[in-house]
Order: sequence, then C-alpha cells, then structure tokens
Amino acid sequence: MIRYLKTDPWKIIEEGFNPQHHQSSESIFSLGNGKFGQRANHEEKYSGKHLQGSYVAGVYYPDKTRVGWWKNGYPEYFAKVLNATAWSIIQVQVNGEELDLAVTPVKDFVRELDMQCGVLTRSFTACFANGVECKVTAQRFLSMHNENIAAIRYSITPLNASATITFHSKLDGVVKNHDANYDEFFWEYIHQESNQGVGSVVTRTKKTAFELAVAMCHDTQGVDWKSDDVAQAQVACTFEGTLAAGEEAVLFKYVGIENSLYQSKDKVNAVAHDHAAAARHQGYTALLQEHTAAWSRVWEMADIVIKGDDEAQQGIRFNIFHLNQTYTGKDARLNIGPKGFTGEKYGGSTYWDTEAYCIPFYMATKNQEVARQLLNYRHVQLERAIENAAKLGFKHGAALYPMVTMNGEECHNEWEITFEEIHRNGAIAYAIYNYTRYTGDASYVMEKGWEVLLGIARFWAQRVHWSANKGMYVMHGVTGPNEYENNVNNNWYTSYIAVWCLKYTASILDQMKVQDEAAFADGCHKWQLDWPQESAQWQDIIQKMYLPQQEGTSIFLQQDGFLDKVLMPASELDSAERPINQHWSWDRILRSCFIKQADVLQGIYFFEEDFDLATIKANFDFYEPMTVHESSLSPCVHSILAAQLGYEEKAVEMYMRTSRLDLDDYNHEAHEGLHITSMAGTWMAVVQGFGGMRVKGDTLTFRPMLPQQWESYQFRVNHRGVIKEVTVNREGVVFSDRVAVE
Amino acid sequence: MIRYLKTDPWKIIEEGFNPQHHQSSESIFSLGNGKFGQRANHEEKYSGKHLQGSYVAGVYYPDKTRVGWWKNGYPEYFAKVLNATAWSIIQVQVNGEELDLAVTPVKDFVRELDMQCGVLTRSFTACFANGVECKVTAQRFLSMHNENIAAIRYSITPLNASATITFHSKLDGVVKNHDANYDEFFWEYIHQESNQGVGSVVTRTKKTAFELAVAMCHDTQGVDWKSDDVAQAQVACTFEGTLAAGEEAVLFKYVGIENSLYQSKDKVNAVAHDHAAAARHQGYTALLQEHTAAWSRVWEMADIVIKGDDEAQQGIRFNIFHLNQTYTGKDARLNIGPKGFTGEKYGGSTYWDTEAYCIPFYMATKNQEVARQLLNYRHVQLERAIENAAKLGFKHGAALYPMVTMNGEECHNEWEITFEEIHRNGAIAYAIYNYTRYTGDASYVMEKGWEVLLGIARFWAQRVHWSANKGMYVMHGVTGPNEYENNVNNNWYTSYIAVWCLKYTASILDQMKVQDEAAFADGCHKWQLDWPQESAQWQDIIQKMYLPQQEGTSIFLQQDGFLDKVLMPASELDSAERPINQHWSWDRILRSCFIKQADVLQGIYFFEEDFDLATIKANFDFYEPMTVHESSLSPCVHSILAAQLGYEEKAVEMYMRTSRLDLDDYNHEAHEGLHITSMAGTWMAVVQGFGGMRVKGDTLTFRPMLPQQWESYQFRVNHRGVIKEVTVNREGVVFSDRVAVE
Repeated sequence: MIRYLKTDPWKIIEEGFNPQHHQSSESIFSLGNGKFGQRANHEEKYSGKHLQGSYVAGVYYPDKTRVGWWKNGYPEYFAKVLNATAWSIIQVQVNGEELDLAVTPVKDFVRELDMQCGVLTRSFTACFANGVECKVTAQRFLSMHNENIAAIRYSITPLNASATITFHSKLDGVVKNHDANYDEFFWEYIHQESNQGVGSVVTRTKKTAFELAVAMCHDTQGVDWKSDDVAQAQVACTFEGTLAAGEEAVLFKYVGIENSLYQSKDKVNAVAHDHAAAARHQGYTALLQEHTAAWSRVWEMADIVIKGDDEAQQGIRFNIFHLNQTYTGKDARLNIGPKGFTGEKYGGSTYWDTEAYCIPFYMATKNQEVARQLLNYRHVQLERAIENAAKLGFKHGAALYPMVTMNGEECHNEWEITFEEIHRNGAIAYAIYNYTRYTGDASYVMEKGWEVLLGIARFWAQRVHWSANKGMYVMHGVTGPNEYENNVNNNWYTSYIAVWCLKYTASILDQMKVQDEAAFADGCHKWQLDWPQESAQWQDIIQKMYLPQQEGTSIFLQQDGFLDKVLMPASELDSAERPINQHWSWDRILRSCFIKQADVLQGIYFFEEDFDLATIKANFDFYEPMTVHESSLSPCVHSILAAQLGYEEKAVEMYMRTSRLDLDDYNHEAHEGLHITSMAGTWMAVVQGFGGMRVKGDTLTFRPMLPQQWESYQFRVNHRGVIKEVTVNREGVVFSDRVAVE
Repeated sequence: MIRYLKTDPWKIIEEGFNPQHHQSSESIFSLGNGKFGQRANHEEKYSGKHLQGSYVAGVYYPDKTRVGWWKNGYPEYFAKVLNATAWSIIQVQVNGEELDLAVTPVKDFVRELDMQCGVLTRSFTACFANGVECKVTAQRFLSMHNENIAAIRYSITPLNASATITFHSKLDGVVKNHDANYDEFFWEYIHQESNQGVGSVVTRTKKTAFELAVAMCHDTQGVDWKSDDVAQAQVACTFEGTLAAGEEAVLFKYVGIENSLYQSKDKVNAVAHDHAAAARHQGYTALLQEHTAAWSRVWEMADIVIKGDDEAQQGIRFNIFHLNQTYTGKDARLNIGPKGFTGEKYGGSTYWDTEAYCIPFYMATKNQEVARQLLNYRHVQLERAIENAAKLGFKHGAALYPMVTMNGEECHNEWEITFEEIHRNGAIAYAIYNYTRYTGDASYVMEKGWEVLLGIARFWAQRVHWSANKGMYVMHGVTGPNEYENNVNNNWYTSYIAVWCLKYTASILDQMKVQDEAAFADGCHKWQLDWPQESAQWQDIIQKMYLPQQEGTSIFLQQDGFLDKVLMPASELDSAERPINQHWSWDRILRSCFIKQADVLQGIYFFEEDFDLATIKANFDFYEPMTVHESSLSPCVHSILAAQLGYEEKAVEMYMRTSRLDLDDYNHEAHEGLHITSMAGTWMAVVQGFGGMRVKGDTLTFRPMLPQQWESYQFRVNHRGVIKEVTVNREGVVFSDRVAVE
C-alpha cells in the first residue's frame, strides 16, 4: 500500500510533486470521456520518467503475437490499445529557459483532480535558474458534453521580474507504443499543417488503416502568435510575449479529435478542425460549464455518498468517476478496456469483466440502453465467436467468445487461457439473463440474445464429454476464474455455469416457440436448429453433469484433486513472498492451494438463489482464507458475500481493498494504468454487498448493513425507469423513488 | 512419407536434382565431425530456396526470450545454435555466366553421400545459356582425423567449347540465424584479410564473446589466382583460367577453423590459418585418406549389417553415421544437439535425450570414456542445476537440471515444460546407473555421480507433497514424457522414477559410507548431508508414494483422471487430421487420450526388471494403440517393447519409422534439420529390440529375433573392453568376442 495522495470526498490531491510516483499519478489523474482519453502528462516538457499516453476508443493495432512455441489455434495477432497523437503538450520557456519539472525547482505544487466536474488542475511556483519565479496554473478537461473536444487553460505569471514567456503548443503524431511486441511503430504519417496557431496532424494505423485527425487552435492573453513549425506528423505553434511582474500570460488550447470510425477518411481532418474551431468560438468558460453540467447529470444517477469515512467516500467516487470516463454506451463498437484510457497493458478492449462486473453498474446508473449496447456488442460479434470455436474443432454453430478482443477475433495467446479459460462464455450468457431480469426488457433476448445463447449452449454441449469411467459427463482441460490453476479437470464453476447455460437457453427457446411460432421457425431455419430435439443431449448433460463436491460436506470442489493439495490459509504465508505472483515460480503457484480470485465463490455469487446460507457460508469459510486476491476482480465478490454472511470486518477490508486498489496502489502497478473493470466491482460491493440489493422477480429487495466506521451511505439505482434512492444510517433505512431523468 | 532418394546399403543418393526437396537434402546430406558441421549447401550460388548453414560446436548465442506473458522463474534467454561463417561457397562463372542450379539447366545430376567414408559428392552437366556445357564434380569432407579442417575439390570441365572459368571462393561472416527471436544479427565483425588466395574472417558472438576464425587457402589446376576482395567479414578470392574443351579446371579449397573455446582470442586467426596451410601442405588426397581411415575405425565398432533389406540397412547406417558426425566425446563441454549440425530448430545442445537415448549407443560403440564424458557434462553443471532449482523455490542443494541448455542454465520457457517436465532429472540419474551397470566402472558414481544423484534426490524429496486426503505422497503439476498432457497430477512415470532415484541414491550413499568412511565424511560436510538421517524422509516417500493404477488390473495410469478420457485407438482417427499436432488445437490434443511418445511405457522400458511380462504386455496393449508417435523419440522404445513381447510386425513397423524418419521424412520436417538424438534410439531398436540385449550383472544377455523380411543382421558392442559381435540369421545366432581396438 502506497499513500501519498490526500483524502478528500470529491477530489484527488497531490500536494508537493512526487517524481517517484509520477507515473502512477499520470494514471490516477487521467481524464477521458468515453471517446478518447489522456494520461495526466505534464503539459510542459518533462525529462523525468513518465509515460506519454493519449488513447482513442476503438482505434487499435493488430500487433504480431509473441509466443515461445506456436500452437495450432493461436491467433496471429494481439490487438494493442494504441498510443496516439499527443495533444496536451505546451512547452514553456521563461526568458529562454525551459520549464521542466525534472529540472526546474518548484514550490507549492498542487495537482488536483476534481471528480465532481472532471477537471484536472495543477498549480505551482517555478523557480528558474535565471532568477525568475513564476506562478503556473494549468487546467484541462475532456468534454463529456462534446466528446470530440478537449481544452487546456495554461497560465503563467512572472512574480518577481518582467519576463519573456514562450509557449510551444504541439501536436506530436510520432508516438511509439510502450506496449509493442517487436518495438515497431504502428502509425503512418498522412498529413500535417499549421497556420497562425491553427494546426493538425493526421495519422493512419498500419494494417487496420484507422485514420485519426487531431486539430488545435488557440486563444491567448499576454502572448501573441509568433510562428508555426511543421515536421512529419508534428506541428508546433509558438506564442510569445513579455510580461511585467504580476502580469498573467494565458494560452487556451482547444483540441478537436476525429477518426475514421465516425467520418470518411477524406473528412477527418476538416471535421477535427471544425471541432476545435467550434470549441474556440464557444470559449473555455462556456465549454467548461457544459462539461460540468454533463458530469453533474452523471453524478445525479451514479453517486454514492458515504459519510463518516472520507477514504471510503473518495474510493467509491474515484471508481465511479473512471468508469464514466471510460465507457458511455453511445457506440456499440466500443467496450470497457481493462485499463480504459489510462495505460496500455493487457491490450484489447473486451474481457469477460464487462459481463461479470461492469454490466450491473451501467445497468443501474444509466438508462438501460447502455447495458443493452454492451450486450449488442457480443451479438454483433457472434459470427466471429463461431469462427473462433471452429478453429478449435467445434461444429454446428458452437460459439466461443474470445478471452480478449477488439473486433470479435481472439487476440490472446497463452493456451491455458485462450483455449481453456472458457468460463467467459458462461458470463456472457449470464449477462443476458441478468439484464433481462433486472430491466424486465425481454426484447433483447427474444430478438438477438437467443442467438448468442444458442451458440454458447452448443459450445458447452460439445465441450463436455461422457466419461465411461465415471458414468457422468465431465469437462476436462479448463482454466477457471482462478488463473492460479491451469488445465484442470472439472472446474466446478465452469461446469456449473455450463449446465446453467444449457438450462437457461432451453427455457428461452421454449418460450420463443410459444410466443411466436413463425418467427421461431425462421430462427430454427437460420441456425439449423431442430427444436426441441437438439435439447435432448442438453437435458442429458444437465442431468448427468459431474460437479465435484467434498463427500459428506456442502463444499464444492474447485476442481478434481483440489483436496490432495496442502491446504493452508494465505495468512500463514511469509509476507515477504506476497504477492506470490511476483515471488513464486509459476509451477509453485499452480501446485499451491492459493486462489487468485473468486472461483467456486464466483459461481455462488452468480447463482446465490440455488444455495442455502449454510452452503454459502461453508464454501466462503473454506475458500476465502486460501484466496490471495491478486486479481483486481477478487475483493469485490468476497466483500459482497462477506456482507451477506454478516462478516462485517471482512466485508469492509475487501471493500477498502477494491475501492482504493489504485489510489493506494496495493499491487504496485498503478503506473501501468488503472484497473477500470474491477471498479464496477467496487460499486457492486456497496450496492449488493452493504446495501444487499437483489432482484426478486419484478422488484428490488435490499438487506442493508452499515459498517461500524461509517455514519451513513446513500446510493441510487435506476430500476426500470425509476430512480430508487437508498439511504442507510444508524437510524435505519430510507427508500425513496424518483423518475429517471435521462 | 516422402521418398525421392535411392536405396543403397552405404550411400544416400539423389539422382536428378529435386529443388522442391533441396532444403531436406541440405539436412540429409549434411557433414560434421563433432567440432563443426555444414549443411549440404551447393558450393555455387543458389538462388532457389535453401538454408545456408554452418555450425560450430559449443558456440552459442543467448537470444532474448520470446514469451506471451512473462512468468517468474523463466530464463532470460534462449540459447541458439549459431549459424556461423559460411566457408563452402565457391561461386562459378563460365564465360562470365553464373552457375546457379535454380537457373542453369543441369543434366545427369547425382548427389551422393558415401557414409562409409564421410564424403559428399555432386556431379552434373550444366548447360549454360551461352551454349557451353560443362561437367561439374564437387566433393567435400570435414575431416574426422583433424577436426579443424574441411576440404573441397571442385572440378569443372567445358565439354563442347573452350571457356573461361572463374571461381570466387568465399568466406562469408555476415550470416543471420534462421532461428532468431527478434531478427537480430548475433555476430560482431572482428577481422578479415585475404592475400593471394589465402584469406580469413574472424567474428565474435555478441554477449557470449566467442571468437571464431575461419581461414582458407587453395590449390588450383587450370586456373590461376586473379584477385582478392575484402569487405567487412567477407573475403573472396578469385581464380580464373581459359580451358579448352575437355580440359579440367580444379579448385582445391582447404578450410581451417578455430575458436576461442580452444585458443586464446589473439591466436584464433593465426591458428585457423595454420590449420588451412597444413591441410594444403598435406594435400587433398592424403587428407581424404586420413579421413576415410578415421571413418573406417568408427564403422569397425559401430556398424550394423542388415542383409536382405536394403532400406533397413540404409536406415540404420544413416543413423549411426549422423550420430558419429555430431558427437565424438572429445570435449566435456559439448553434448548432442537435437539437430546436431544439420539445422537450427530447438536451440540449445542438451536435452534429456542424451541420457535416455544417446548414452547406450555411445557406451556400446565407443570406448567407455565417451559415455563418461557425457555424464561428466552434468556433473560440471551441477551448481547451475542447484541454482535453477533455487529459482523455483527449492532449497538445501536440490538440483533441477534444465530442459534445454548450453552451459547448464535453463534456456527453455514454456512453463509446462520448463518448470514441470521434471522427469528429465530422473533420466539423468538413470544414466549414471545405466553406465555403471554396463561398464562395471563404479568410479564415476563414487567420485562424482553421487553428487549429481544427491542433488536430484533432494529435488524429488521436496517436489512431492503429503496429501492428507490420500494419506500418501503425491506429485502435482508435472508434464511427463508425453507432452500431449500438461500440468497433470501423479504422472506415473515421473513418480516412479522419482522413487527409484531416492532408492538408488540412498543405496549409493550407503555403499560410499561403507567403502571409504573418511571420504564420505568429507562429502557429507561439503553437502551438509546428515546421513543416514536425511534418508528417513526418503524412505517414507519410497514407502508411501502414490502411483496411480487401474483397479483390478496391472495397468499403470499415465496420470490422475486418465480413465475419464474418451479412450480410443489412434487408428480410428481421420488420417487427414494426422499428425494431430499439425491439425488440432492444443486444448483438444490435451483433452484427448492420444499419446505423443512413450510415457508409462518409457518407465516400463527403463525398469523392465521390476515387472513381469504379463504386466508389460497389458500396459503395451493398453497404451500403444493410443500412441500417435509424433515425437521422434517414440517409435524406438515401442519397437524394443514390441520385440520383447513378440509383436514382430509392430516391432518392424516402429523400427522402419525410427530408422528412416528423416530419410523418408515421415513428419515433413527434414528441411529443418535431422532428428539426431532419436537416431540413437534406432540403434537401440536393433540391439536391444531385435537383438534383445540386456545387462545382467556383469554379463550381457541376448534374446534375438530375426524379422521375417531380413536374411540376417549383425552388430557389435563394446562391453568392458571386449567387442562382442552378434550375428543373427536363419540358422541361429553366432557370438564372437574380440578385444576392443580403440
């Protein structure tokens, strides 16, 4: 745990510059608006360690894969989140001396992210070697109102002498991915121009040929345009002025971004210029007002207020803030990258995290169309999932959704994950069920979702096999959610969700047949579905699936052979060897009993209604102590179950760990980017954990508990167009309903 | 199976040039002498598809590893067999027109490898576009007598007109590995010179800083030296002459090779020149005589004569020939690379193949010092094996020998192999036992081998764990010899050999204590060995190790859960899907019952004396039908067991497959290089399989069978200084003894 940021209910504050944590700060203070995002790089030159990072949703590059030994079925490429044209650069010189926070001493440094309005501000006094001291204030935002626009207000005031201030405002398209398998450049340089402070850069991705235009224009105060410099994919506009002591020089930089996902390639440059020009026309203050208003609508729906514990309060808002910066649900081609716009690690944009963790958050804090958009994403990619399964030898429309993807194709390549961590298919089916029961909107499953379910059910029906030895169906060679076990037989979670998928799909198909026989007949024709004949094998599997369980107990066994391990609690591990994934060799991790994230317990969380409380408790008591929570997705599920079981201390511990995972950098990896998808789990920990929210038929039920150290908490959920506000304090619980505004 | 070569008892013959098989021919016709080797690249320019390949024993490069996701314990590098300065190049022009077999039509092409004397000859008539026809004969050898020398006699005779013949004899140090992870050059260029047809190139490997000098000088007939050209790491000497029709131009090229494993770096160039000059002084014919004599001494010991089946005869000699070209036992730093000097694939030089397959061959066909040298190799690397085990968390001198190595460090990086295919440790211990019982020389195990055994035994004692559930010791997370199963629990072979190692090591330590108490006390001090106290845990493991077996049968189970698979014979597979490793995705292979190579049967082969014939038969009948033999190491062990069980047809099928694996290119991969280590298995298939040779105490026993299609076979084995010649024909078996000559 690393704590260098101030606790505040609405803000993230760094007082005094911490160069040793700067890369983490660049992640934590990142801004985004669903369409593009920007790490909190200093505007000025910074010669210290940092990761310049500017990312655009949906614009990716299929990097050549890197494997030890190629195996049949591996994808040819691994989609990379692309570091794109840097637009936040404003280099500053004072009397010709460069401002560089790795060189220039500064005092009174404050970096502040105001989450309520999505604005990043830095202020400090820079003490130049030439004797001039300047007050600097830099503020920026990425508009949540007009998602093609960003704006920066950069102000500098010489305090003790008159000084010549020079700004070089740049667009730099010569960017290299930090995460590149063979150290290659992923961009081609198409166009660059600049004229009197109005410039743009157009670049195109190799292979995928996405075109990206970034334009800028400026307003000034105290400085004047001086020159434009244009090099390949790089433009710089220079502004200069000489100011008296106490006089303020301000550069307003308006940035417009457009790409070929939304415009034809011949127009992206012009449209980017239009965005920038319109922003300038509107002006910084008006843009900021619109942006703030947009954030206030977000918070109106999504905020969780925790009183009496500012750390908990700051944590949950930090999570909600970044989720909203990452995904807004406006484009069915987009999804929720595990690092959002805050870093490059993991590549791809879509994991099972979306269905297992993110959908509940978006479903309850947005209009239901947003969650439906996420479901749609998988429906659009169904053909690719079928091709993916075919590569692995599956037939008859069986679909295996990829472990990681940008466009539906698999782009992960470790066999134990790519080919074996197939439970992802279950989560994708579960999300359809989850959406349907929460929203009451059956139209998605009846119109599109059933096709996804059918492909998934067919996959499971082929993936199991009959064991003559056991006289039951078994599922061999899988990796469960606990990735600290690879290639195991009969992972309880995977087998359980497979059976559930078969049951649910069969029930949906039966309903369809009854509801609209003609439409169903068309569907059967399209998918060569002979119904209910095809369900005969499904029913056999449902009845005879092997689900390992410890004899004489209600403990479900994570996999075959689990009880043959040396079973011991993680608390007995040497703390110097934690996290074990940074200290132990992989084989040792695999042999151990230690669990990365909820596995059996993930199934119990999903299918809670199938188990009595004693069973839930027995499994939690058995597995949680062996769980090392080395996945960001782990603590939230445990927090929810702990709350349900009345283990308040454990629930709060897990909540704090999930909500402040990046703020307190528990895993020493915030510098690589934030754990965006697990942030939705944090929200679940409050609403489903402490709040005890459950869906029972057409209504929501709550069974709140109030952690001792909190005075109260309050959250809102949008349930079928009605905003339910739940307030829990020492006096009790208050429910109130309002009509949803969006 | 691809058959384009003629069958001949002593020769490999290609009649008519087959460009489509040229890369395979380059492998098959390769030459080597234990110190360096050369693929059968054409001397002339060849613009068609080929792999220029020149390799020097012990000179390697630690290439950066390439992995999908880094895991703790992975080695930083993967040692590559290094493609080194090309020295066989003699470009030829006739009246200025280049001879290029991809362009110039040729007739009467014959390529012939005479295995009896280790000489490669090509002859053909080239029909130039300019109308000149020339007879070409090119012959080369790599001296088995003086292993620093190679010689080429290149002859060309214009047949139908006078012509100007130009030879450009080259050394080219600008070589790139075909097998390079990041497409980098591995060599630095140190020196090059050429003066009147005497030239050299010195290059140095990056990182490892091996220096290699290759020198050349020439004799000529009908042409004269014309010029020298020197570029960085490249020298060319030009010879030219105008010849009447029917007149022969000959270039004799003498090549001397030296490297810094044997000489100080300031001397390698001079010494290489000395080698070349001495060779020239001696002359081609005398060199060839020495070389042929050396080969004849090899065949005297190692030949196997099969009458009545030339394919079988050619096959076994091809295997014996290449084994002798690859390893001669003169240098304890060298070992037997899986591709020898015939290709780059697999990297590294040392696998468990050496101990499991190669040692019996070298033990019986060479002076016993050669096998002892191979054992020494592991003793020298013991500290590295201990370091390797420590990286994986093992303590107290536990040793895990690497899966692949050049210098003792692990350089393989797939977790399921690197960390889990630990049975290799067992084979290394077994080889010590095998050597000792065969040679009767206990001095190795008593002086050095016991230290290797102790490290290995300590590894096993820590690698198993007590299963409270089973009330037995188990071994989780291993990969057996059958690499079509990964990360399994209780692989019978691994567990069996682990227990055997503990027993054998304990018995050796007990013997040592009795034989020389003082020396043993020193050893105990060195290794912090408290004896026999340390054996208490070993004995417990020996008594309580879990070895999976099918209830009510004598079938040993390959691993936990094996019987839950769908069990079916490989013969029921669609032949279009064979080999499965080129058609099935990895997960499908893993889930299937199909076996890559002997696993349980490898154990039964090693420890045959522990099992009655009914048990051997039951296990062979159970496993062999599920075995797809997709490892080159598979057929030999099955051939031996089939012979023992009287399954003659299967024994012969497996023998033909192993002996002609590369000649008939069963696996469509001869172009990558030959399967050198499995060639020793071919020898075992004759001697231990058909010959039924076994060691019983101090004597050899034989139980020969004669395959129906053979008239007779004869082999010799060196047993404790006595050459036993065994002749098996329809009349019976003749044994005769002679004193070993070497």
